[in-house]
Amino acid sequence: MKLDVKELFLKLDEVMNKEIILEGWVKNHRKQKTIGFIEFNDGTCQKSIQIVYDEANANFEDITKIKIGSALRVKGIVRTSAGNGQDFEIGLNSVEVLGDCTDDFPMQPKRHTREFLREQAYLRPRTNLFRAVFRIRSVAALAIHSYFEENNYVYFNSPIITGDDCEGSGQMFKITTLDMNNLPLNEDKTVDFSKDIFNELTYVTGTGQLHGEAFAMAFKKIYTFGPTFRSEHSNTKTHANEFWMIEPEIAFCDLEGLMNIEEELLKYVIKYVMDRCKDELELCDKFVENGLIDKLNNVLNSSFVRITHKEAIDLLKKADVKWEFEPAYGEDIAKEHEKYITEYYNCPVFITTWPKDIKAFYMKVNEDGETVAAVDLEVPGSGELMGGSQREEDYDKIIQRMKEMNIPLDDLDWYTKLRLYGGCYHSGFGLGFERLIMYLTGIDNIRDVIPFPRTPGKIDY
Amino acid sequence: MKLDVKELFLKLDEVMNKEIILEGWVKNHRKQKTIGFIEFNDGTCQKSIQIVYDEANANFEDITKIKIGSALRVKGIVRTSAGNGQDFEIGLNSVEVLGDCTDDFPMQPKRHTREFLREQAYLRPRTNLFRAVFRIRSVAALAIHSYFEENNYVYFNSPIITGDDCEGSGQMFKITTLDMNNLPLNEDKTVDFSKDIFNELTYVTGTGQLHGEAFAMAFKKIYTFGPTFRSEHSNTKTHANEFWMIEPEIAFCDLEGLMNIEEELLKYVIKYVMDRCKDELELCDKFVENGLIDKLNNVLNSSFVRITHKEAIDLLKKADVKWEFEPAYGEDIAKEHEKYITEYYNCPVFITTWPKDIKAFYMKVNEDGETVAAVDLEVPGSGELMGGSQREEDYDKIIQRMKEMNIPLDDLDWYTKLRLYGGCYHSGFGLGFERLIMYLTGIDNIRDVIPFPRTPGKIDY
Repeated sequence: MKLDVKELFLKLDEVMNKEIILEGWVKNHRKQKTIGFIEFNDGTCQKSIQIVYDEANANFEDITKIKIGSALRVKGIVRTSAGNGQDFEIGLNSVEVLGDCTDDFPMQPKRHTREFLREQAYLRPRTNLFRAVFRIRSVAALAIHSYFEENNYVYFNSPIITGDDCEGSGQMFKITTLDMNNLPLNEDKTVDFSKDIFNELTYVTGTGQLHGEAFAMAFKKIYTFGPTFRSEHSNTKTHANEFWMIEPEIAFCDLEGLMNIEEELLKYVIKYVMDRCKDELELCDKFVENGLIDKLNNVLNSSFVRITHKEAIDLLKKADVKWEFEPAYGEDIAKEHEKYITEYYNCPVFITTWPKDIKAFYMKVNEDGETVAAVDLEVPGSGELMGGSQREEDYDKIIQRMKEMNIPLDDLDWYTKLRLYGGCYHSGFGLGFERLIMYLTGIDNIRDVIPFPRTPGKIDY
Repeated sequence: MKLDVKELFLKLDEVMNKEIILEGWVKNHRKQKTIGFIEFNDGTCQKSIQIVYDEANANFEDITKIKIGSALRVKGIVRTSAGNGQDFEIGLNSVEVLGDCTDDFPMQPKRHTREFLREQAYLRPRTNLFRAVFRIRSVAALAIHSYFEENNYVYFNSPIITGDDCEGSGQMFKITTLDMNNLPLNEDKTVDFSKDIFNELTYVTGTGQLHGEAFAMAFKKIYTFGPTFRSEHSNTKTHANEFWMIEPEIAFCDLEGLMNIEEELLKYVIKYVMDRCKDELELCDKFVENGLIDKLNNVLNSSFVRITHKEAIDLLKKADVKWEFEPAYGEDIAKEHEKYITEYYNCPVFITTWPKDIKAFYMKVNEDGETVAAVDLEVPGSGELMGGSQREEDYDKIIQRMKEMNIPLDDLDWYTKLRLYGGCYHSGFGLGFERLIMYLTGIDNIRDVIPFPRTPGKIDY
């Protein structure tokens, strides 16, 4: 019977004392004079299994030469373990080396720095840490799909290529089929983009929100989940040029309803991951962020705080802290402020009712004429995790706002027209998927939660 | 009690004879002298619900003026229906117009051509047909995630931006942050891409396979599901410049095992969608492809045929058909051939063992030295749905093959090295998501299964 290691752990009673076949890789290999131990893992779960052989194995000497990293097909008996540290093991009957491993294999079983492993992006998922991180990433993605499926949302694929650079995200990559060493030119020497495949200058998008609104007006509840791009030259721990976003958009939903959804989603994802990734989270708790599991449990058991931007500034001004950036009404809040606020409440905090001048054109202006119905969710340890708003549903008001903010009306004609054809109050938010994974694992560098990260100057794989 | 229309249908017994609140849109509105009927839909399911009002409603005259397309909040009693065509209806107590609809609303309740609707991409999901198609698209995506989750795969996000143009897909878009009207130049007047954000010429990818192989060597079973791009100038019914792909990659899996997975996946997705999209599929069966549901049931109940490329050519040569393209050993098979083969067997057909010269460099060369362990899955009515292969796992052989095919070795150094570090027999395939949706809905134009399609010259939204 051929099994995944994960199945083996699940079906232990069924296979005990039987011969099974496993295929996977050697994580470690300890040899003694008359006995040897192979730590064996096939990647289907975090845990490895110990394979034990001894002089009773006909080719004992050959087996002792099996290298770390090599791929094996193993036949053996599942049996209770005589040693410490595990309840059962595989008593080896026979082994076939399917793929040898050369001596320069960089993933030897010792502690590597994350900086070193980042340079080995194609191999690092074979380490305990990155096996955990990237499985959590996978399970969290499924948690998100599962939440929206249970709540009757339609999964909507927004276009990546776009003709508009005015979607509010700024800093967009240009995309072209033209030969850049031989560009077709207009008479005035500018590039003749009418010769490009879409007959105009095009970009890859930074958001699916605007298109998502069109589909929310048809399906009531939709979400996107796909890659987005920012061309900014920032080399920080939290910026990448390519990352994944989840952007739900809900018709007939106000800001209060939106916060309920955000809170429910975050708790759902945390619970889903905790139920399925116990070993992975324990590893992160031990080696990445001590107290991680307590932090996540605390979120599950809390009611998120909801305060206005003004209340947040009040709180910051009262605080006995020497700020690098002085908190001010009407202005954005800095990282140090986010940190103070979430630590003050010791749970996720929604900050609502933001000054309109620092927010996007599509947000609904409140009756005071000064603030918008926007909300940021700040979480302890990670800062902003989600950002959303009720959208302006009034045609005249959004047109006026776009004029004030110099957003070209023509390109977004279809978007504003949504307000004329049965437009209704509606809201949406964006959740940066990598931010979420950093929060769930305690990893503090975005480069370590993306399989092959793209940051300025870095495109090695 | 506020409900989605879908919940209303599910909880009918519970809410019968009670007052409920619905929010959604007017699909149709028929008025008679003393009574009126609003066909009401909120997008959460295919079916609409009938709302009935009469002169007992205080503002009867106002209600008769409610326009098609407008957004309403409706209060009314769920009751058994006196009329024909439905079992129950809502007896209106009160209605609030949340969003009016101007008279130029293009989605009036009459038959529109799909060509016309394509020009109204932001509104077409409000029609019965596109509501069905895009819900099927959403449910099929979840089916795919669900299949792989149940089978213990890791969902892997391959990078979109890449520095290599040699991944075997060809025809890649270039992506840049440079000012194209003012490009930095080298001394020889070529573009100085070292000034671009990644310090080299970069592309958006046409496949995640190569990166997927690296992760399969860590997790055994992985799949990608994300957007891919081809810059080709083809204006056909089956080509788009932006589309979504699913690319599973499985370690310790040979070609036979791969076909088993492909067959199991396709049946799983069909069953998942049939279980959840009965109304949507019935609509497609009626208006798009007569016999659609029978076709899908037939797939569920069939064992897919497995033949070699040579056997396929034998069959075609024996056929009493005047071909446009004469079938030939060693050459690709044309659309007309695919059609004949799938109709001959009347079920999906795997064609294996392809001539190596027409296939990609990473495919495992068979012992004959002439063919590769590749497999295409052809389905009746749609042709090729999946394409896969066992990968060459031998380092020397893949290097030799890359040299023969002029694939630059340096860029893919990490990829070939996977063969040195515990490489093993492994296989994978690609499934074009839009092809799948076309197959599931009977829609014959890829532009009608993508929310906002990107094809040459078309980027209106």
